[in-house]
Amino acid sequence: MNYRMITQMLGRVITIEAALLAVPMAVSLIYGESPLPFLYVMALCALVGGALWRVKPVNHDMYAREGFAIVALAWIILSAFGALPFVISGEIPNFLDALFETVSGFTTTGATILRDVETMGKGCMFWRCFTHWVGGMGVLVFIMAILPMSGEYSMHIMRAEVPGPVVGKLVPRARKTAGILYLIYVAMTVAEIILLCCGGMSLYEAMIHTFSTAGTGGFSNRAASAGGFQSVYIEMVIAVFMLLFGVNFNLYFFVATGRWKEALKSRELWVYLGVIAFATLTIGYNILPLMGSWGQSLRYSFFQVNSIITTTGMSTINYDPWPEYSRTVIVLLTFLGACAGSTGGGIKVSRMMILFKSAKAEIARLLRPRSVNKVRMDGRSVDEKTVKCTLVFTFLYVAIVLAGTLIVSLDGFDFTTNFTSALTCVSNVGPGLNIVGPAGNFAEFSYLSKGVLTLCMLLGRLEIFPVLILFAPSLWKKS
Amino acid sequence: MNYRMITQMLGRVITIEAALLAVPMAVSLIYGESPLPFLYVMALCALVGGALWRVKPVNHDMYAREGFAIVALAWIILSAFGALPFVISGEIPNFLDALFETVSGFTTTGATILRDVETMGKGCMFWRCFTHWVGGMGVLVFIMAILPMSGEYSMHIMRAEVPGPVVGKLVPRARKTAGILYLIYVAMTVAEIILLCCGGMSLYEAMIHTFSTAGTGGFSNRAASAGGFQSVYIEMVIAVFMLLFGVNFNLYFFVATGRWKEALKSRELWVYLGVIAFATLTIGYNILPLMGSWGQSLRYSFFQVNSIITTTGMSTINYDPWPEYSRTVIVLLTFLGACAGSTGGGIKVSRMMILFKSAKAEIARLLRPRSVNKVRMDGRSVDEKTVKCTLVFTFLYVAIVLAGTLIVSLDGFDFTTNFTSALTCVSNVGPGLNIVGPAGNFAEFSYLSKGVLTLCMLLGRLEIFPVLILFAPSLWKKS
Repeated sequence: MNYRMITQMLGRVITIEAALLAVPMAVSLIYGESPLPFLYVMALCALVGGALWRVKPVNHDMYAREGFAIVALAWIILSAFGALPFVISGEIPNFLDALFETVSGFTTTGATILRDVETMGKGCMFWRCFTHWVGGMGVLVFIMAILPMSGEYSMHIMRAEVPGPVVGKLVPRARKTAGILYLIYVAMTVAEIILLCCGGMSLYEAMIHTFSTAGTGGFSNRAASAGGFQSVYIEMVIAVFMLLFGVNFNLYFFVATGRWKEALKSRELWVYLGVIAFATLTIGYNILPLMGSWGQSLRYSFFQVNSIITTTGMSTINYDPWPEYSRTVIVLLTFLGACAGSTGGGIKVSRMMILFKSAKAEIARLLRPRSVNKVRMDGRSVDEKTVKCTLVFTFLYVAIVLAGTLIVSLDGFDFTTNFTSALTCVSNVGPGLNIVGPAGNFAEFSYLSKGVLTLCMLLGRLEIFPVLILFAPSLWKKS
Repeated sequence: MNYRMITQMLGRVITIEAALLAVPMAVSLIYGESPLPFLYVMALCALVGGALWRVKPVNHDMYAREGFAIVALAWIILSAFGALPFVISGEIPNFLDALFETVSGFTTTGATILRDVETMGKGCMFWRCFTHWVGGMGVLVFIMAILPMSGEYSMHIMRAEVPGPVVGKLVPRARKTAGILYLIYVAMTVAEIILLCCGGMSLYEAMIHTFSTAGTGGFSNRAASAGGFQSVYIEMVIAVFMLLFGVNFNLYFFVATGRWKEALKSRELWVYLGVIAFATLTIGYNILPLMGSWGQSLRYSFFQVNSIITTTGMSTINYDPWPEYSRTVIVLLTFLGACAGSTGGGIKVSRMMILFKSAKAEIARLLRPRSVNKVRMDGRSVDEKTVKCTLVFTFLYVAIVLAGTLIVSLDGFDFTTNFTSALTCVSNVGPGLNIVGPAGNFAEFSYLSKGVLTLCMLLGRLEIFPVLILFAPSLWKKS
């Protein structure tokens, strides 16, 4: 293990956080709030980050395990420092609560322990939603985009941080890839802010809701979430952008470089759109008696389906009292999640396709034991290691949800609440059913449960392995 | 596909069922009930079975797919004929309800659509519980034990019918294996009947509860299940025998041939016992405030833990109002199930061990991509195909539970009811939580849900692949 290099990298991450904190501090100043909570933490980050950055690695050996360790530790440290402004400002006095909220922010979960979001100051609220935007694309990817690094070095980090079964090399050099991804991300963010402002939102609210959409997070400054604006236009803009941010960003790169056809050939895209269409229509039909008209039905179901499948978790209505079919579809979409290489969480559409295809291949193998049955995606065969890794990943995903459910059950809430709270945290969605439904929050849970759910969010966002690897004793051996 | 051979084999199965029906008919005669419902169905089975048996195969080619098809079709046909006595006697007038009950019997699930079990006639009740005993060890295995068949032929059937990731060849010839397994099964059954009679049970009740225990089914003629006897002795006899029937039968074969040490070396056995001990103690502690004393607490928790992990599903108390931790442990045990090669259902302890070991191997591989990480069980390395098949199996298991939950949700019951009813059917346990808790039943569900749950029970008992393979178009091609 190359400890010195990891230390230096974490130093960079903390320094970057100092810079990021300047944004909410500026917001505080604009709105006449005290900038001190942010200033203090910025100073601390600059100090600690600067000191660690000075550690010079003896050698530049960088392997997969260093990549995993850097990513996992970076996210934990970022969240720990990021929680401090909430504590210092007194908005969330307890550090563990503030940590839950910050991890929920960076992991783009959007689960909250706040009983009343509307009383929070503008600076802290901005920081809260800004973490979604930062976490959506990945902090390490951001660092790679702006700092010089060797190709091999970056690929290991990118594999560990970018969601999905395989990281496609868009361009040979990972650094350039990271830059292009961020460019697309920024462009789409700006587009949504402008469109929301056109709908009559203030720039402030347009920005925080865009951060929330772009990172597929789900935080809002309104208790009624996106439904608080009572505007079909605003709801549709957010719904469509959620859908767009749930698409594999590689496809936008293809589109940007004129390769439309290649983008449209992606099977994952069509499955993703097909699931959205199916879920929207069946939920729309299911809630028709509650809504009165197909127009209203589809308005709410389209928003909610996009919100859940992309793992954003915003809402325009409290869906908890919806009929059981709709609630169950929401649970299934929470498992599924968005496309690989998007900012969304969940198991991912492409993984689910690999899973079903490998089940089909397994059946074919049982019928004809000597036949060769390869899993193919978009015409290319998926190698055995990826298939197996996907299968193991999915097993661990379910195991973590069930283990989380068991520990949370000690608080004595009902099974549906416990199961959906563990699931929604691992999938980085935000709301679940019953007590943690869209009108509820996570404030009632014990600190044990909050801690476990915080871990679930990190496991989900980093796709399990980097976090689990931290617990492997062999990771910490000197190489 | 060797259609003629499949037809002949199904003919044998149906003929065997005619013979099996003689047992409840005798019970009806003894208790002065009409034997006609059984007599009619016996005649029908003898006629149809005899006719099909006459079909002579042109060749004796037998491959994996023929094995799968025979097993899946045999179980469906057995259940369809087995449901008829309930319909003819008027005990369960609707055929679909009777089919649900019979599939629940043969698959050793023990889920019931009966609102009041205590009013059922003694002949039908005997048949209902006898199906557990028949289904526990497998009907095809029984046929192999008594009819001459070639080795290759039998192995394919045994692989498809006996639960667990790998069928160990106890002795070179499958037929001899089947005979030994049945001998152990009969011996243990007789022992339990005698012990229950010693506790003051009538021979009739001792027999039906032993069938229910031996097959890890769960049917009882008492509304309060095993708790209806209010006897600690009876409860403990049943609890210990449930535990014993949940152990891999290979171990009993080792013990019977003096190879004690080999039996005790099985890691699966120790994990199984460890889980039972852990669950018993923690549930015991959890329900202590309800029970008043450790004695009472452990009495109920030991019985319930054994009942669920072995997928029997009997109960001595209504555990539905237990604290949420205990309820969640029960859900997790429902997933887990008993040992491979036992009469129990669920994912199986050995599969779960393979899953966790392969997750560990995957993490090791990610840390050191060039290292070789084999999954090992009891000192031997598990081949890659078995590991992958286990992973795919588990994915399909979860997918079927979730798909079942979705369809059942159309009936509008709560999520916990829907999820646990699909899960308990796939795992062949019987009761779930809330409406399908131990004091409840499956009567309220629509026929769509009952049909889906019937399919879930078959999928679970035959370990998914044989049933799924029926839907593969390539199965039905002439070879």
